[in-house]
Amino acid sequence: MQTKEVLLLLTDRFADWEAAYATIGINMVPQYTIKTIAADKRPKISMGGLRTEIDYTIGDYRNLENLAMLILPGGFAWQESRHDDIAAFVKKVCEANIPIAAICGATIFLGKHGFLDSIKHTGDDLESFRKEDGYGGESCYVAAQVVVDGGIITANETAAVDFAHAICKTLKTHDDEDIDAWRDYFKNGMVQ
Amino acid sequence: MQTKEVLLLLTDRFADWEAAYATIGINMVPQYTIKTIAADKRPKISMGGLRTEIDYTIGDYRNLENLAMLILPGGFAWQESRHDDIAAFVKKVCEANIPIAAICGATIFLGKHGFLDSIKHTGDDLESFRKEDGYGGESCYVAAQVVVDGGIITANETAAVDFAHAICKTLKTHDDEDIDAWRDYFKNGMVQ
Repeated sequence: MQTKEVLLLLTDRFADWEAAYATIGINMVPQYTIKTIAADKRPKISMGGLRTEIDYTIGDYRNLENLAMLILPGGFAWQESRHDDIAAFVKKVCEANIPIAAICGATIFLGKHGFLDSIKHTGDDLESFRKEDGYGGESCYVAAQVVVDGGIITANETAAVDFAHAICKTLKTHDDEDIDAWRDYFKNGMVQ
Repeated sequence: MQTKEVLLLLTDRFADWEAAYATIGINMVPQYTIKTIAADKRPKISMGGLRTEIDYTIGDYRNLENLAMLILPGGFAWQESRHDDIAAFVKKVCEANIPIAAICGATIFLGKHGFLDSIKHTGDDLESFRKEDGYGGESCYVAAQVVVDGGIITANETAAVDFAHAICKTLKTHDDEDIDAWRDYFKNGMVQ
């Protein structure tokens, strides 16, 4: 079986928890392997203080044939600059019709660069939903726990389990019923 | 202000999500800084495939005066061997009356080495609770989402947010009401 790669795009002070359920759901099955990618090769330090090594740089990752999905966790870096270099890489992935998943601050980044212009928003009015979060910035671009639309998955910072659920369904890591049961187990807890 | 250290003890194939809410709650306040520690200095690869660098080895960390807590995330490694070297380090931390927090497989490790002998279990009968989980082993030593007892915090794999809540309360990272509100926000979701 050909193992396809799923890229986790890291920035400094990325949010530890946001893609943490998704990456294990993906990396535990033989069809996929998680690789880290960033604008440069320097290890990226998470909000929680973990120094994570980088497998690829966006400049070096030119052949997308073996890429199954690009995941962008949130974090402080997204609101500090435009990250035009990362946006150019996201554009290349989009144009290759490869799914993209973004959570929290990374949805703001995608929105700023026009990648979410065609997304159908759910819930409250979008503008009123863009809230100031505890970290001093807009926290999310979508007015729902998770939205799957047009090859793009978006979620807010409290939806790490739902984000993983949508990602695993898109990648078909397991049977649908197993992915649903897994989500319910982690959302409801082992001891209720 | 003197910044105290909180050690996150990593093993190969540690569980990405289990301490991920706790580490950010701790590392975001100026009183504490998260440092990684392991049996050796080789980067540890998480279940999700993230290669994390190690700040200290257990052999080198001899002065506990600046240590506020030791956190042990779960993962596959705990059931593969006894880890007597890590148990000796945990014993030293216990004897210094420094709080210890363990989740999922790490609670099994603590139990095997007798660290949980005095813990008052809650909920169902303990023996019947030790269940086979999806990863092929006993997943937890405590029959509750989280138990705080005698300087030791234990939790099961579905209780990452409650684990962070108990840790932040013990370390007094924020006011109690803020820690409660943060837990409710992450458990209930931004959009209900």
